[in-house]
Amino acid sequence: MTAPGAPHFDAAFRDDLRRLMAWRRDVRHFQTHPVDEAVLTRCLSAFSAAPSVGLSEPWRLIRVSSPAARAAAITNFETANAQALAGYDGEDAETYAGLKLSGMHQAPVHLAVFSDEATTKGRGLGRATMPEMLRYSVVGAIQLFWLAARAEGLGVGWVSILDPEALTEALDVPKDWHLVAYLCVGWPRADHATPELERAGWEARAKSLIVEDR
Amino acid sequence: MTAPGAPHFDAAFRDDLRRLMAWRRDVRHFQTHPVDEAVLTRCLSAFSAAPSVGLSEPWRLIRVSSPAARAAAITNFETANAQALAGYDGEDAETYAGLKLSGMHQAPVHLAVFSDEATTKGRGLGRATMPEMLRYSVVGAIQLFWLAARAEGLGVGWVSILDPEALTEALDVPKDWHLVAYLCVGWPRADHATPELERAGWEARAKSLIVEDR
Repeated sequence: MTAPGAPHFDAAFRDDLRRLMAWRRDVRHFQTHPVDEAVLTRCLSAFSAAPSVGLSEPWRLIRVSSPAARAAAITNFETANAQALAGYDGEDAETYAGLKLSGMHQAPVHLAVFSDEATTKGRGLGRATMPEMLRYSVVGAIQLFWLAARAEGLGVGWVSILDPEALTEALDVPKDWHLVAYLCVGWPRADHATPELERAGWEARAKSLIVEDR
Repeated sequence: MTAPGAPHFDAAFRDDLRRLMAWRRDVRHFQTHPVDEAVLTRCLSAFSAAPSVGLSEPWRLIRVSSPAARAAAITNFETANAQALAGYDGEDAETYAGLKLSGMHQAPVHLAVFSDEATTKGRGLGRATMPEMLRYSVVGAIQLFWLAARAEGLGVGWVSILDPEALTEALDVPKDWHLVAYLCVGWPRADHATPELERAGWEARAKSLIVEDR
């Protein structure tokens, strides 16, 4: 039983979708020229198509544009990254030091994405036993945005080497907003089918997916 | 600078991708006939294309097939759902009681998706200050699976009205695995562009996405 207007997706579309997923990278090397606002708006509209627990739509977006706010975010990252480096020894430390883990200096668009932990939208449905579902809803929406951006040729990089409390304070958002992600968005300097951490020799993808039975 | 073989995605593909996202629903009404294994495998391969913090690939999948394991999951949901209902009053309680919040009885495929909190893959990169990135990586992978399934015409329903500790214990998984999601997968009884909670009058989607500046 298919609704009137329900789309059918054929094998050619599925092949393209697989290619999109295969070439979606976490990008840290950006060109500095701006992203057209219409293109960015199209990508951001993916948020509104995302599933959310109880239809709570808890995503809250801050575009970090002012020099002061950007500087606070970059300093936050650099501090956390230096602390992370100090946690590695020997060859690991050497490899880690050589990794480029954020494109914050170059990326024209910075987005801080929060979950509104105080939202009453959805009236709590689906999150009584798993309150983390609010944040998971935000993560799912980010994934859709990421694909939409890649389909436009844009790159997205998710920076998690941050002190989330300090960054939240620096961005002056309502107290019930919880930082889920800090995203850099822009035109990538190159396209790759292989993750940067794999190209840099830090880690490799698993050969196969294991599904166990119960 | 585009790598050899890097795909270009055109406006027609982006339109189809938007349609895919717009018609991706949380499905609770399934047909009972089985899902072809080759189709399911194709959808599951989306997990391996997902981004993960430090390339940790922390997703662990359990296919819940045995009558005993399914019964435990269904009882777990029914208990949590009765408790949730008891938390609503008046009209809310009446509406809640009329909602179908899981398709566990009909869906041919049940997947419990965990995050392996003890994985050393990725050597901790990117999660020193935000350890939740492991679970977020699993959520992102689920979102890709969801789209891949919808592109095949399959429906996915995410059940979060569960006691995650009790379900984890019932499924007898390693102690460091943390339950992120319980998914029902199968052929939907109908296709919809509107969320079921909106059709049932529980909640409506926001009219627009707000992006604030800092």
